[in-house]
Amino acid sequence: MRAGITGIAPWRDIVQAAGVEKAGNMIRAAGLTVTCYCRAGLFPAADEAGRRAALDDNRRAVDEAAAIGARSLVLIAGGLPKGSKDIAGAWRQVHDGIAALLPHALDAGVPLAIEPLHPMYAADRACVNTLEQALDLCDALDPAGSGVPGGDAQARAALGVAVDLYHVWWDPKLEAQIARAGKERLLAFHVCDWLAKTRDLLEDRGMMGDGVIEIPKIRAWVEAAGFTGYSEVEIFSSLDWWKRPADEVLTTCIERHRTAV
Amino acid sequence: MRAGITGIAPWRDIVQAAGVEKAGNMIRAAGLTVTCYCRAGLFPAADEAGRRAALDDNRRAVDEAAAIGARSLVLIAGGLPKGSKDIAGAWRQVHDGIAALLPHALDAGVPLAIEPLHPMYAADRACVNTLEQALDLCDALDPAGSGVPGGDAQARAALGVAVDLYHVWWDPKLEAQIARAGKERLLAFHVCDWLAKTRDLLEDRGMMGDGVIEIPKIRAWVEAAGFTGYSEVEIFSSLDWWKRPADEVLTTCIERHRTAV
Repeated sequence: MRAGITGIAPWRDIVQAAGVEKAGNMIRAAGLTVTCYCRAGLFPAADEAGRRAALDDNRRAVDEAAAIGARSLVLIAGGLPKGSKDIAGAWRQVHDGIAALLPHALDAGVPLAIEPLHPMYAADRACVNTLEQALDLCDALDPAGSGVPGGDAQARAALGVAVDLYHVWWDPKLEAQIARAGKERLLAFHVCDWLAKTRDLLEDRGMMGDGVIEIPKIRAWVEAAGFTGYSEVEIFSSLDWWKRPADEVLTTCIERHRTAV
Repeated sequence: MRAGITGIAPWRDIVQAAGVEKAGNMIRAAGLTVTCYCRAGLFPAADEAGRRAALDDNRRAVDEAAAIGARSLVLIAGGLPKGSKDIAGAWRQVHDGIAALLPHALDAGVPLAIEPLHPMYAADRACVNTLEQALDLCDALDPAGSGVPGGDAQARAALGVAVDLYHVWWDPKLEAQIARAGKERLLAFHVCDWLAKTRDLLEDRGMMGDGVIEIPKIRAWVEAAGFTGYSEVEIFSSLDWWKRPADEVLTTCIERHRTAV
């Protein structure tokens, strides 16, 4: 708040370590909006017991998201179960897992935001890799874009998407798919940058403005579709930004938000 | 030939170093089929002089491909010009570059095979990243799938695609797009494997069978579409296979070709 930041997207491990109730109280006391809760999903498993465990954990994530007042719960699909090469089977498990989770999310008033991850994570993290694929899931499982109760200012479908530029910036269908999502399904918008010389598959994201993504252009598409939420900064960067003092990182985020987002 | 390999897909730098005529003579003397010539393309440039230079070089590549009797010339799109973030502009330059090259390729009787590269290379190597995007270019520039003269046994469009599993295995639309390509546009088929724990963006490809790609399943789609050409092995692997003795690599390629392709 000191820096003028009014929203936060906490990760589960941090919230769980603090205790969900205490974390919720801290966030409310600080007057922060919880843009989304990161993250659940990870549906594919090698056997039925694994699938049940994943579903149970996802239901707990929905409850935690409700407890901290999150505007959505981010889902990443999950990759191939250990030893499996069956990506079509993994897609089916993601479909079935979200179908099983959705009624609980509706009851709790927490919209689910499917975040397509970059195709380079298809094997080990998420087998939903384009906005089109994520929206096909939304249309299959929540065809009406049924709203979540809660009287929120922005209309939100129970099942939508989180658009993270790092994962989708390269896609020639991005503009059309953002328009297709519309304001009901656009539940979260994450920004960072793709460095032209990326050195690591996971932890070498760039600060906005340092890479090749046309962030203002894509932000304009998202806003033209009716999205009025936050632009959330998410920069995995063990090679650079995580080594710097937190104050410097925050100051740079805010400055770049003004000049490069 | 000693190992029973009857086809080859030479790279330009090797052919140019040997001399194009001499390379062609060696290949013919060995009785090898030149499945494709790797590679040209790289169209986007920062200015008109750069675009002209790229086109000139592409025309030379067509001539070299004809001289060594290649069944196709592989094109990779090229990435963003240095300092540019304009990916839509790069897409247009790729479109225009192929349009300018195509008449020369038709004259020379060398089909052009657009190879979509994995989206992780969109910035620095190729901004055509899905089979759908490559086929959209084919349909726009060569709508009739006009054949190349030459009396080849397999019908081939003047403009088609090279399907490299490493780049496209993750795509939920892959099966449908292979069927869409059909035998006329399926000009080359490259195999290797995606390692679940990939350590490097460029040079950590896996030997067939060591990764997560369902190679036989996708090969069956390609053959069901009418493709009767070779399965070409291409394994960039400075971290593993390039360190091993050439005989071991070749022996393993052949063995895996029988068991995992």
